[in-house]
Amino acid sequence: MITSTQNETIKNIMKLKQKKYRDELGLFLVEGYHLVEEARKAKCVETIITTTSEIYEEKTIHVSSNVMEKLVFTKTPQPIMAICYKKNQRDYFFEGKRYLLLDRVQDPGNVGTILRSALAFGYDAIIMSKDCVDLYNDKVIRSTQGALFQMNVYIMDLKTAIDELKKQGVQVYGTALRHAHNIQSYQKQEKMAFVMGNEGQGISEEILDVCDDLLYIPICSVESLNVSIAASIIMYHFL
Amino acid sequence: MITSTQNETIKNIMKLKQKKYRDELGLFLVEGYHLVEEARKAKCVETIITTTSEIYEEKTIHVSSNVMEKLVFTKTPQPIMAICYKKNQRDYFFEGKRYLLLDRVQDPGNVGTILRSALAFGYDAIIMSKDCVDLYNDKVIRSTQGALFQMNVYIMDLKTAIDELKKQGVQVYGTALRHAHNIQSYQKQEKMAFVMGNEGQGISEEILDVCDDLLYIPICSVESLNVSIAASIIMYHFL
Repeated sequence: MITSTQNETIKNIMKLKQKKYRDELGLFLVEGYHLVEEARKAKCVETIITTTSEIYEEKTIHVSSNVMEKLVFTKTPQPIMAICYKKNQRDYFFEGKRYLLLDRVQDPGNVGTILRSALAFGYDAIIMSKDCVDLYNDKVIRSTQGALFQMNVYIMDLKTAIDELKKQGVQVYGTALRHAHNIQSYQKQEKMAFVMGNEGQGISEEILDVCDDLLYIPICSVESLNVSIAASIIMYHFL
Repeated sequence: MITSTQNETIKNIMKLKQKKYRDELGLFLVEGYHLVEEARKAKCVETIITTTSEIYEEKTIHVSSNVMEKLVFTKTPQPIMAICYKKNQRDYFFEGKRYLLLDRVQDPGNVGTILRSALAFGYDAIIMSKDCVDLYNDKVIRSTQGALFQMNVYIMDLKTAIDELKKQGVQVYGTALRHAHNIQSYQKQEKMAFVMGNEGQGISEEILDVCDDLLYIPICSVESLNVSIAASIIMYHFL
């Protein structure tokens, strides 16, 4: 059992709290029974870290409570964490019918919640611009409630993605507050992709320019919706 | 200008970070230009606190940056905060057409986001059980994006609220994952109220028992939706 927070292994695990090292090593951390279980089901676990005496099929590191407290992100740690493999970024094949694109969405809770909704609604993939919050940020992962391990996610240039989607016959819709069509009177299409923009600024001009059409959710005029809410309503509406 | 964090006035303002004192004094804190502006529009401001030299119509306290850093909740403080009056809990008159009830919803981000959606969809009121997270929690307020100042919110016993709603001819719907009707095939009624449950446990048995009917949002079977997403989809669906 490792009892020192100065232990080299522990120091290396700590590094995974930084995006730089997650990218370099292709690994990330998850915390708590639910997420570890989801990671195990998805066969993404590299190492399990626990304060219990349990031995898992996967490589297991036993640590003391003070070490666990140092490793976790939350204030009330559960006795288990895992180091997971990031999914390989696979080649994209946009042969499905429903896609959601995120343009510079910054809040980890929003991105995580959107992933969870997209999985619940059976969407084919989420496509994130490279300047969205890191998919492997601990708050993103917690908000996904495990959906991260099951949902197809591509991190790529959105213009390239939109080009490819269009080649597959997918209609691409931007979401906007004005100069747009009310979703309630808009015809459902066989293949649809929806772009959601940054929390403060919305979708960037260059992405708006390449959308086939713009849509809005009917709301009281001066108000706006949280982006994870707007994304989920649109996904639901065009199910 | 107050420059000491040990100043008595500052110490008293700090107390408002605790629910106990907010309840006792009927005051709460908001932070940043947007929320302070919304509070001013709603005529809820008791005192403005600022690091600038600006003088407002309202009582203004000028403080140094180190004092502001102590007062704020966020890591990157804006130069303005306000002490606001809590709204008086008014008598309830459920004469509207759309209500949302929250049974023990605990996450501040969820409650704030639900308020924001309810305002955007023109709902008549939100009714929160007394054991929900505190409405005046700083994270709730931030997530409302100011909707707090415009939305009718009642904090009261849910069974009493449901009785009163029924007396006004409002149909009350629980949300559940099973033994419920799909919202997509459910007839819209003139007056509807929807109950959303706790993040982990859903709606309590005693509240389920008094609902007129149960509804669910159609999703892939093993998944679930975040409660603020589910609430917003239901509000949108029955607009």
